[in-house]
Amino acid sequence: MHKRSPLAPDSFPHLPAIDGLGLAVAASGAKYKGRDDLLLMTLCSSATVAGVFTRSDTAAAPVQWCRDRIISGTARAILTNAGNANAFTGQHGQNSVLQTATALGAVLDCAAEDILLASTGVIGEPLDTTILTPHFPQLAANDTASWEQAAAAILTTDTFAKGAHAQCDIDGIPVTICGIAKGSGMVAPNMATMLAYVATDAALPAALLQQILSSSADQSFNAITVDSDTSTNDSVFLIATGRAKHRPVTSPDDPRLAGFRDALAQLMVDLATQIVRDGEGASKFITITVTGAATDHAARQIGLAIANSPLVKTAIAGEDANWGRIVMAIGKSGFNIDQNAIRIEIGGFAVAADGMRVADYDEAPIAAHMQTASIDIAVAVGPGPGTARVYTCDLTHGYISINADYRS
Amino acid sequence: MHKRSPLAPDSFPHLPAIDGLGLAVAASGAKYKGRDDLLLMTLCSSATVAGVFTRSDTAAAPVQWCRDRIISGTARAILTNAGNANAFTGQHGQNSVLQTATALGAVLDCAAEDILLASTGVIGEPLDTTILTPHFPQLAANDTASWEQAAAAILTTDTFAKGAHAQCDIDGIPVTICGIAKGSGMVAPNMATMLAYVATDAALPAALLQQILSSSADQSFNAITVDSDTSTNDSVFLIATGRAKHRPVTSPDDPRLAGFRDALAQLMVDLATQIVRDGEGASKFITITVTGAATDHAARQIGLAIANSPLVKTAIAGEDANWGRIVMAIGKSGFNIDQNAIRIEIGGFAVAADGMRVADYDEAPIAAHMQTASIDIAVAVGPGPGTARVYTCDLTHGYISINADYRS
Repeated sequence: MHKRSPLAPDSFPHLPAIDGLGLAVAASGAKYKGRDDLLLMTLCSSATVAGVFTRSDTAAAPVQWCRDRIISGTARAILTNAGNANAFTGQHGQNSVLQTATALGAVLDCAAEDILLASTGVIGEPLDTTILTPHFPQLAANDTASWEQAAAAILTTDTFAKGAHAQCDIDGIPVTICGIAKGSGMVAPNMATMLAYVATDAALPAALLQQILSSSADQSFNAITVDSDTSTNDSVFLIATGRAKHRPVTSPDDPRLAGFRDALAQLMVDLATQIVRDGEGASKFITITVTGAATDHAARQIGLAIANSPLVKTAIAGEDANWGRIVMAIGKSGFNIDQNAIRIEIGGFAVAADGMRVADYDEAPIAAHMQTASIDIAVAVGPGPGTARVYTCDLTHGYISINADYRS
Repeated sequence: MHKRSPLAPDSFPHLPAIDGLGLAVAASGAKYKGRDDLLLMTLCSSATVAGVFTRSDTAAAPVQWCRDRIISGTARAILTNAGNANAFTGQHGQNSVLQTATALGAVLDCAAEDILLASTGVIGEPLDTTILTPHFPQLAANDTASWEQAAAAILTTDTFAKGAHAQCDIDGIPVTICGIAKGSGMVAPNMATMLAYVATDAALPAALLQQILSSSADQSFNAITVDSDTSTNDSVFLIATGRAKHRPVTSPDDPRLAGFRDALAQLMVDLATQIVRDGEGASKFITITVTGAATDHAARQIGLAIANSPLVKTAIAGEDANWGRIVMAIGKSGFNIDQNAIRIEIGGFAVAADGMRVADYDEAPIAAHMQTASIDIAVAVGPGPGTARVYTCDLTHGYISINADYRS
């Protein structure tokens, strides 16, 4: 593992077990030596499951499988392997998925269709399932791994394991939410992918669960970017085991869900921003808030244009309050912005307004803010109701070293 | 000036004067010391002029001025200053434009509206026109500078002056085309912009000239990218002085224009790719050819998705034949590609087909190609008629050094 990111949290948080969810890990040795690279999550029979997946047209075989399977809203297990993405592997890749699901189904006494799969690692390498399948009986028999072990088993070039935990209640009954994630770029030597798994003991119908996941993902996993590159394997799963004893909740508008929604949203932002904090070569964590756009969608695209600009990211790496580059990025985003309506603040200090630098511009406090590890950029682009917040990291020599300074 | 790019041509080519076009340079000292930073191009009364400009919503004041003026198809002069972009300068910037055009018009005995302007340099700094205007009489009196002097006067962080020359004929009469350009990223310490000026002695009506320029720009200046960032000041001008003695040509479909169109297209690709060869930190020149897309537009966007991918660009910097990253970039481009239809060749060698790595994949010849300075990537994405070629450079430590390793 590379040197731990300077933006990493001090330690992995304590995550309690979720009633109805089993965790098991194993070391297949397929690519990595001396570490776990397989994670089996087993779901009790009352569990529902939802998922969001990469929009890539070159989505990996396991993603194509899950897109079809997730519609049922149920699953018996989710198996993840790290080291091989099973992406762009053609019919062989489809066969690998079916073989894996069939073999695991036989061990768990369920149909192949009840197994969800996620892969992360090299693109374009055929996945040899005979290296994985011998571990299935042991994984099924020993499902009491910790969340930290689970989070470690799915890493590729990540420099730290990522977890988050929240407590809330539904209808007065305590509910637990735990989540893990991996990701740190599209990712280095050929590695790919952001993966996240969030589980709760709440009892939520599958359609409701999917609606909650999709809307939370927009504010979290769809609001982060390291290098603008989209993986073939991105997958986020939300599992509700149904073991909490609250009365049924079925409507997305049910006020009893407010606390759960808030806790989940916060946890997902926590996990998503941990991925940014592990961005390849990152030395600064950047939060970009956009207001005044025509729609939330426009606001997010404008935020992403700033977040993905190599010139903005390198300026921040250089601790340079180069706000002209922010103007440039807004201008190229393509949303018909009136430049005279643009306001820019860095670290809470006004930089530009009314189409030009503010009259009493003082760079000293902004320069001081640029030297901190967390940079805040706020951009208002007009009178519209659209807002968004996106998260990214800077672009440093470390990114180049990780991605270019090697030969395959 | 930074160290000359390793991808630069050996020397500036010989460019003959264009009958009816005057060139004059001067050193204002506004930002740079000991070099020219003002270029005046004066046009004879028979000249027509066309222009294409940045699509940025935060376009600079001179670009806004030129967008309105270019519609007339005529101009008396084009003045360029290097060092200050006059971008995001609000009403002050509009005033600077009017003051400059008025002062130069007084010297040249024409209306302010007959003056076109281009600026390149720092964004957000008010432009003090009193530093420029005293040089106008001298510029107007001495209009016999060479193309090489003209090309040098407009540089910012470029590492070499860029020029190109072509001869052709229209209706059997010899016609000359000369062009200069600048640009090397959106660009370093706060510098901006790609600028190009192409002049010919051909006699072409303004509407026809604009049509020819717009279609040539799509294949050249709109087909290059260094870092995906779009400047506030990009401008390309095409001037036809009308001094060549060929019979009138008025239709874009006139077959007598074929040779001129070909020569111009080739010259514009030459100039545009010189900008890529001067890309910040570039060590490899990359040509990406996309075929089989639904439309030429889709093909270009897919090519740009590959060309702008930091992971593709760093892999090439690392001389790594990491074709999985090309698959990823195609997948994220959003054109509903069938991954089983994708074919990828690197350096003319097949890498992937039918949705997976080719059966007889041999990395040795591809690895050898990756070690050369010019990398060719060919991607077929389906059975469609759309094709495009885009040009870019790799992403190296040099880019980070130029853009991050300084403090403002």
